[in-house]
Amino acid sequence: MMESSEGLPQRWRAPRFAVSFIMFTLWILWAGLALADEKSVAEKIIEILRANGQISEEQYKELVKEAGKEESKPNDFRVYWKEGIRFESEDRKTEIKAGGVIQTDWAAFDPDEEVDAAFSDDDIDGHGVEFRRARLFVEGTIYENYEFKSEFEFAEGDVDFTDVWLGMKNIPYVGRIRVGHQKEPFSLEELTSSKFITFMERGLPNAFSPGRNTGLTLSNQELNGLMTWAMGAFYETDDFGDSFADFSDYQATARITGLPWYCEDGRELVHLGLSYSHKFRDSDETTVRFSARPEAHLTDARLADTGSIATDGVDLFNPEFAMVYGPFSLQGEYFQALVDSEADDYTDFYGFYVFASYFLTGEHRPYKTSSGAFDRVKPRQNFNPVKGGWGAWELGVRYSRLDLNDAGITGGREQNYTFGLNWYPNPNMRVMFNYVLAQIEDREDLGIDDADVNIFESRFQVDF
Amino acid sequence: MMESSEGLPQRWRAPRFAVSFIMFTLWILWAGLALADEKSVAEKIIEILRANGQISEEQYKELVKEAGKEESKPNDFRVYWKEGIRFESEDRKTEIKAGGVIQTDWAAFDPDEEVDAAFSDDDIDGHGVEFRRARLFVEGTIYENYEFKSEFEFAEGDVDFTDVWLGMKNIPYVGRIRVGHQKEPFSLEELTSSKFITFMERGLPNAFSPGRNTGLTLSNQELNGLMTWAMGAFYETDDFGDSFADFSDYQATARITGLPWYCEDGRELVHLGLSYSHKFRDSDETTVRFSARPEAHLTDARLADTGSIATDGVDLFNPEFAMVYGPFSLQGEYFQALVDSEADDYTDFYGFYVFASYFLTGEHRPYKTSSGAFDRVKPRQNFNPVKGGWGAWELGVRYSRLDLNDAGITGGREQNYTFGLNWYPNPNMRVMFNYVLAQIEDREDLGIDDADVNIFESRFQVDF
Amino acid sequence: MMESSEGLPQRWRAPRFAVSFIMFTLWILWAGLALADEKSVAEKIIEILRANGQISEEQYKELVKEAGKEESKPNDFRVYWKEGIRFESEDRKTEIKAGGVIQTDWAAFDPDEEVDAAFSDDDIDGHGVEFRRARLFVEGTIYENYEFKSEFEFAEGDVDFTDVWLGMKNIPYVGRIRVGHQKEPFSLEELTSSKFITFMERGLPNAFSPGRNTGLTLSNQELNGLMTWAMGAFYETDDFGDSFADFSDYQATARITGLPWYCEDGRELVHLGLSYSHKFRDSDETTVRFSARPEAHLTDARLADTGSIATDGVDLFNPEFAMVYGPFSLQGEYFQALVDSEADDYTDFYGFYVFASYFLTGEHRPYKTSSGAFDRVKPRQNFNPVKGGWGAWELGVRYSRLDLNDAGITGGREQNYTFGLNWYPNPNMRVMFNYVLAQIEDREDLGIDDADVNIFESRFQVDF
Repeated sequence: MMESSEGLPQRWRAPRFAVSFIMFTLWILWAGLALADEKSVAEKIIEILRANGQISEEQYKELVKEAGKEESKPNDFRVYWKEGIRFESEDRKTEIKAGGVIQTDWAAFDPDEEVDAAFSDDDIDGHGVEFRRARLFVEGTIYENYEFKSEFEFAEGDVDFTDVWLGMKNIPYVGRIRVGHQKEPFSLEELTSSKFITFMERGLPNAFSPGRNTGLTLSNQELNGLMTWAMGAFYETDDFGDSFADFSDYQATARITGLPWYCEDGRELVHLGLSYSHKFRDSDETTVRFSARPEAHLTDARLADTGSIATDGVDLFNPEFAMVYGPFSLQGEYFQALVDSEADDYTDFYGFYVFASYFLTGEHRPYKTSSGAFDRVKPRQNFNPVKGGWGAWELGVRYSRLDLNDAGITGGREQNYTFGLNWYPNPNMRVMFNYVLAQIEDREDLGIDDADVNIFESRFQVDF
Repeated sequence: MMESSEGLPQRWRAPRFAVSFIMFTLWILWAGLALADEKSVAEKIIEILRANGQISEEQYKELVKEAGKEESKPNDFRVYWKEGIRFESEDRKTEIKAGGVIQTDWAAFDPDEEVDAAFSDDDIDGHGVEFRRARLFVEGTIYENYEFKSEFEFAEGDVDFTDVWLGMKNIPYVGRIRVGHQKEPFSLEELTSSKFITFMERGLPNAFSPGRNTGLTLSNQELNGLMTWAMGAFYETDDFGDSFADFSDYQATARITGLPWYCEDGRELVHLGLSYSHKFRDSDETTVRFSARPEAHLTDARLADTGSIATDGVDLFNPEFAMVYGPFSLQGEYFQALVDSEADDYTDFYGFYVFASYFLTGEHRPYKTSSGAFDRVKPRQNFNPVKGGWGAWELGVRYSRLDLNDAGITGGREQNYTFGLNWYPNPNMRVMFNYVLAQIEDREDLGIDDADVNIFESRFQVDF
Repeated sequence: MMESSEGLPQRWRAPRFAVSFIMFTLWILWAGLALADEKSVAEKIIEILRANGQISEEQYKELVKEAGKEESKPNDFRVYWKEGIRFESEDRKTEIKAGGVIQTDWAAFDPDEEVDAAFSDDDIDGHGVEFRRARLFVEGTIYENYEFKSEFEFAEGDVDFTDVWLGMKNIPYVGRIRVGHQKEPFSLEELTSSKFITFMERGLPNAFSPGRNTGLTLSNQELNGLMTWAMGAFYETDDFGDSFADFSDYQATARITGLPWYCEDGRELVHLGLSYSHKFRDSDETTVRFSARPEAHLTDARLADTGSIATDGVDLFNPEFAMVYGPFSLQGEYFQALVDSEADDYTDFYGFYVFASYFLTGEHRPYKTSSGAFDRVKPRQNFNPVKGGWGAWELGVRYSRLDLNDAGITGGREQNYTFGLNWYPNPNMRVMFNYVLAQIEDREDLGIDDADVNIFESRFQVDF
């Protein structure tokens, strides 16, 4: 200790003294009233002792000088917990978060004979466990106007890229620019983090969402967050954010959202949104494919699946609706895909979902105005077996439909009825139970006319 | 709050202003004696100046008000090093650790001709280097009663899941619940972290340990840590914690341990333990296989190997013994596996190991009462070439045996003699040297009657 | 600064009390003069109040006792931002850094017909995006004399090992010892971090650099950093730091550098260096291969490629030159490889590059004396669209040549002309644009006589 404490770096000296010292100079000028509260206790004591004439000018000066020494660099971090670890510099110009998420799932499937037969290779009959998501991330704001995020998905043993981007913000008019692997601005449900969605899996028509790709986005919020807009251009990349082609494989996507009704800090709101995306393709080289699991990830069976369709381009339309009225909320989206196939006539697929959610314990679905999507649920009281407190309990029911039959394509027509129960013991954990009744019709290529799959699934989740 | 702030690190003193302020009000009532030490220097000064009538009531009030302001949020972290980075909130209700481990190994093998011939594909003849372990983790306690761990293994270029779980603790009677990928509660040596085991690899019969799988465990300690118990149910999962099956692939495992003798903070103790595990299987679908490397991981040769055995179920028994007497310690375990194969008669395999360890520098093997396993060795003095200090030096010798021959199965009989020297320059690093003489007998399926392999291996390890 | 200092964490004050207390004891003995400035404001106040006789001895003692309590452990971390997150203990004996890097690239290729034909499988014709690097790391100094680094590369979806080592430093005479996966001490350009190199890819002859392998290095700096030396022995390992062989696959490498001219803190310098490496091989078993991409990583085409050459050993020579003169800098290296092939006569390959760089905004290329390589560029002013400030702008031009034709080997002769523009908006980000004209000659095995590839590429980089 001794020898090391000799040259004790200035860094341990309290920042507030520095500030107080500056403040004090101003205080002299301004009669010290305006900024008096900038002072520290010690400073106050010094001032008072002097005012009382209990210390000499020399002693006073010495003390003030001492106070001046006690300065810390502005880049010192405050480190604290707020639903995760946060590092925050004094001047707020640097903020770092680090953490991750774990989702460990269990599921059991009970399919009709013909489904089992048709998907014998795809684990549709049986039970199992998997890590649905296991991620680590570091993200931050640096030098006030710059930001980055570096998040990786380790589930299934390889390293998938999720949000891996850098960007700039606070740009006049433009708002934000982000370059790298990120979600295309399409669909409310897709843009609501998988940590916060109401059911274990997103609805069937999520099959149309472009998801994450590598590209560039511009985004901003207007009217104090009552409106958001985002647009971007992307390459169609693999799970690692890479792509290489000697033909057209890019796409442009845009989204706009608004809150015609918003009050009580989001306990009551109506959200409207519209997304559009166009895939620029070249039918000699490129194909598009839409398919969906039955709202359970543990199976690989794509009950509905168009297979590959050669195309020159694809248009995607997606109107959004959501409302929150205290503990009750409604959400629904419609999706339409127009595939420009050789025969130059548009092949037309569509889907939609609608769900209702209700918090038995009175919480509400929090809405994030900056992104125009839903956010983390925070129970009013954490669950505590000793002191009492139940955490948050939420019930949900969803109907979703996906129609992939058109113009000779027989991807099938699927509809899912999903019932969900979510328990949030604290703001960072939740336990989910879903029952899904999946019905597939007119899947001619597999000779399935009309068949069901019953699915029971549960998830334990923590994010940190 | 109160009792926790007692032994509170002093740099968290700011919050104590708040406390002090409240305390002070009480102090007025209670003559201020009881809680005087809750005060800070500045507070003290204020009180004294007032007591001396050197400041006016107004000045006094102003100062006290100021003191009240100097409050930090209870979720502010103290960040410090304690064999790793620690983030700890004032109230101890939130604690995060982050870190990892590196083990870089070298090994050289000198096998008998017949072994070399039999395992020509398995790198049994030659030398090499590998990263035995390269892990990163984040773990923590949040909201006082909840905990999680997220650790991944990067060795060999993919991402294996080690401890990836979430849970709840401080549950009356039950103690702890953990859900996710974790070690089944079986075998003292298996449950002692690979960072802290005495030899580079665990003994041969570790082949019987279920290791890590995805499931749910309950555990607790009783009698102030003189006893621990744990039980769990698991699916047999792959390296990534996943599994899917339409047949039975789960297992139940339990362990109980006790310390009939424990004194001088663990410098002297006797540990007894018993583990039991049952694999529920279905012989039409499932098989079980036991095999072992010769206590060196750089080779892939499984000198002893039953191959796959169709089975309806497997019983595993494992009594444990360990004693520590100052720098000297003994440890031994016996393992028995009863495989219920078609012919309905039990196929019977067994193994055991026993080793002695001695610290030339006087340290002892630390025992962790909460888990009933051994813990990190801390040298009395770190190695320092300039100022002196040798770190800790440990000698170890082990005999281990594995018998996989029974009822027509000719997995072979193997015994290993292992001599080890460990150097701990500081609490987070160690250098290990092992010599292993591996002898394999009666491995009829490979036509090996009796053959040896000489192995020299070393490890450089840091964990942080 | 000013406005942000409102909610400043108070916690950085405490350690100073501890020191003050110790200091104070000494002060009593030494009349308190020598170390007076070690005191805190509160301490000062106490002393003065006493000196003024405004507090009684009892009060004085009580206050001093209180001050003594306010002590923090020496392992408490200061956490701050300095081009990354830093954790630093009060006594500087423990320092941890954690962070990573993102490099997201775009490139477009326009090859001559014959090249496109010859490398049809290697993505040489077209455009694409990739994450060139996506890494996370933790590194640190612990217990004053020990260090480690654990960095992993996630690009392309697996986990490659970059710097994964542990070591000891401050060793008399020897300096540093490091064991694990690390760069062999060879070539200025190779040893300059990929985060800081002037062009998107290193020059063609980097094909000769051994890069990273698993082994042991000794290194030190002499003459106050005017000289560095390093030497090491390594196994030739895979991307994960592993190797196994029953023949010779190790190599020895050494490097020495000096600064004949160095002034103005590195704004003016001349760097000279020499590296040598020998691969110990066994021609019955082992081969060596040299090949290079055309200074663009998005293609897999190795325009120049010797193919595998059976060899008993390889000698590598590499003289280095670099100079910095304010914003202007020059750098060049020559590489020679002597391959001892069966026919016992040496097959002789060589290459070299030379480049010039100029900072339009007046910065200079920072040189790191401890490693004898170049370091992070820090713009004089960060880019800010509102407040002004352009960041740093750098122009670069490079010529590099690689000759892999000799003694019947027709790996081809390649030369690249590269033009680069770098923009550093802040110390942790940069945007790079490169145009490369790659010319390949005499690649007889592919029937390429003389052909060109035009390459446009850009990179967005953040490191944190």
